[in-house]
Amino acid sequence: MKVLVLGGDGFCGWPTSLHLSDIGHDVTIVDNLSRRAIDIELEVESLTPIRPIGERLAVWRELTGKEIGFVRLDLAEEYDRFEALLRDLQPDAIVHFGEQRAAPYSMRNIAAKRYTVDNNVRGTHNVLAAIAETGQDIALVHLGTMGVYGYGWSGSAPIPEGYLTVKVPTPDGEIDREILHPANPGSVYHLTKTLDQLLFAFYTSNDQIRITDLHQGIVWGTQTPQTVRDERLINRFDYDGDYGTVLNRFLMQAAIGHPLTVHGTGGQTRAFIHIRDTVRCIQIALENPPTRGEKPKVFNQVTETYRVRDLAALISSMTGVSVANLPNPRREAVENELNVSREQFLALGLNPTILSEGLLEEIRNIAEKYRDRADTTKIIARSTWRKGMETSPDLVQS
Amino acid sequence: MKVLVLGGDGFCGWPTSLHLSDIGHDVTIVDNLSRRAIDIELEVESLTPIRPIGERLAVWRELTGKEIGFVRLDLAEEYDRFEALLRDLQPDAIVHFGEQRAAPYSMRNIAAKRYTVDNNVRGTHNVLAAIAETGQDIALVHLGTMGVYGYGWSGSAPIPEGYLTVKVPTPDGEIDREILHPANPGSVYHLTKTLDQLLFAFYTSNDQIRITDLHQGIVWGTQTPQTVRDERLINRFDYDGDYGTVLNRFLMQAAIGHPLTVHGTGGQTRAFIHIRDTVRCIQIALENPPTRGEKPKVFNQVTETYRVRDLAALISSMTGVSVANLPNPRREAVENELNVSREQFLALGLNPTILSEGLLEEIRNIAEKYRDRADTTKIIARSTWRKGMETSPDLVQS
Repeated sequence: MKVLVLGGDGFCGWPTSLHLSDIGHDVTIVDNLSRRAIDIELEVESLTPIRPIGERLAVWRELTGKEIGFVRLDLAEEYDRFEALLRDLQPDAIVHFGEQRAAPYSMRNIAAKRYTVDNNVRGTHNVLAAIAETGQDIALVHLGTMGVYGYGWSGSAPIPEGYLTVKVPTPDGEIDREILHPANPGSVYHLTKTLDQLLFAFYTSNDQIRITDLHQGIVWGTQTPQTVRDERLINRFDYDGDYGTVLNRFLMQAAIGHPLTVHGTGGQTRAFIHIRDTVRCIQIALENPPTRGEKPKVFNQVTETYRVRDLAALISSMTGVSVANLPNPRREAVENELNVSREQFLALGLNPTILSEGLLEEIRNIAEKYRDRADTTKIIARSTWRKGMETSPDLVQS
Repeated sequence: MKVLVLGGDGFCGWPTSLHLSDIGHDVTIVDNLSRRAIDIELEVESLTPIRPIGERLAVWRELTGKEIGFVRLDLAEEYDRFEALLRDLQPDAIVHFGEQRAAPYSMRNIAAKRYTVDNNVRGTHNVLAAIAETGQDIALVHLGTMGVYGYGWSGSAPIPEGYLTVKVPTPDGEIDREILHPANPGSVYHLTKTLDQLLFAFYTSNDQIRITDLHQGIVWGTQTPQTVRDERLINRFDYDGDYGTVLNRFLMQAAIGHPLTVHGTGGQTRAFIHIRDTVRCIQIALENPPTRGEKPKVFNQVTETYRVRDLAALISSMTGVSVANLPNPRREAVENELNVSREQFLALGLNPTILSEGLLEEIRNIAEKYRDRADTTKIIARSTWRKGMETSPDLVQS
């Protein structure tokens, strides 16, 4: 299968590109390298020493004989080049990771809010419009987020996979209607993924584009069977307050002896998935596309749920590092339950990495190995959801 | 009250600006004059001879002694200037008409689709982000559309004003949840208004912005008590296949003896409102804003519903002009019922202009008066919802 991976240089995109190439697909990465540019803006680097995209691809070719293409292109700004690329390559499928993906960054300041909306909405719309315009029957797989659902909206009901059947009152009695799960985004970033859903519904209805939207939990871990083959293929590991995901941040903090930074009570329950399972889920989604005319197919791409304070306690007990309860820079429920439907991926053969198995490996092979690359002034989350909200000072001196 | 009218040079924005100025508000128009630029692109002009914005404002000042400010500014592209304008003027309220508003134009070609999404979403987000950024307590009134609801989704139930209470199944029994009415947009233009709704919900929740969203029906008529005071204040009248609204198109067609262009069977039922009532509704919305922290207030801004073929038959019987059933360039239900809740505006004192009263006045004072300005090659709607859909040739020779 000929596959374009949009955002293929990023944290999920890079290991997905290698995995798809490894199992025999003809992969081309499209990326504007914006994630690396944001590292420069934030004055922070991946804990792991990631290599330039050209070197990454050369190493992969050298190790495997497989060629992954690369096109540097901005999806939001360079529509014409993107449409020409589709006409030229005629891909069978597109995997779309090409969006700004950090909630804290999306709330950081006015420029970041505007960039997140402009970049994500325009980019996704350009992809859809280009598929419709070329008339090619390309299956689109998009990375959404569990955050589109919000937390606690349906009471004790498990969060369904995208759609919900509700009863609507009418003068002739109640009628059943299947609706897209109501949107309850908690940040500008999550908001853009709820906008994407409406774009998908329209382009599926009007142009019969085949779309799969994957509502992913919080990704943890770093490496996949492909990225471990050579240190120059290593994946990103973000630990900073904007881009670091909660569990990886705890693992890095444990490795350097920094208190585990829990926001508020840590009563937030979230869904998690290992990066190894992300890449398998993408493969499964590519192998099971919707048919033409079918509504967008939605999977919940999560394997486990944990309460944040329980994760902190687990890692504290494993490592002896203390837990610090800091002011929460986000506006969110102090405590929530979370129950997620995830039958589809399990039925299609996903055999998940569970958290209790992979933690020690991650600390040993990544966090401890690269601990000297950490900048402790970047650990505290300081992007607040409203101006004037309290944040913590640095907990350790650099 | 100090009011900014975004898009205040357009079909709804101009008469609204005059009305608000007339009743004593301090009005500043913000407009990039994009609607006039699109006339140039489409090689068509308003049937009525509209004057440049500078002349319009000078005439209004001369007639009334009232000053309306004007700032030429692109909301999507010039965020910094817009934020500076808010800090400088410190308005009490903003009326936001500043979006591309024609469904057929939004489906015309790839450039128009992309422009509609980029312009509308970025512009609306910039307005919200600027209000949040400056921390000013500005009430925002936005022009939405009835098209966010789609047609026929709730069976025989009237379309509610924005929100719907549904029953959601849970393991502990059904629970009631109030949801934003599910989005069912029928064009890229309507899609952007559904995206706006999600932006409003988020910025209301996170930043407590006070927002009113007006889901307006199809506007007909041209003049208001203010625009008739001098011919140089006249409002736009669009009759072309992209920007002309169905009823005004019929009136113009009747005036020049062109067959009334009904798409498909004309079984589409739509909601209507006279431009005189639009401006009063805006006034009512400004006088009844939500409180801080309240969810966005939604009004259905419609006064009557009609089936398209019944409108055509009515005008045909009044004028003797024939009806032509043409291929429908849109993807939409062939026939639909429509029942709209509109209690709020009536309760707040709106006394609507009904269609049977204003039609002859409109034909005589506008369509017949300016019939010589019509270009008959622009009448047929040729923007199709998918490539290759059939349209009609011109019905009369120019």
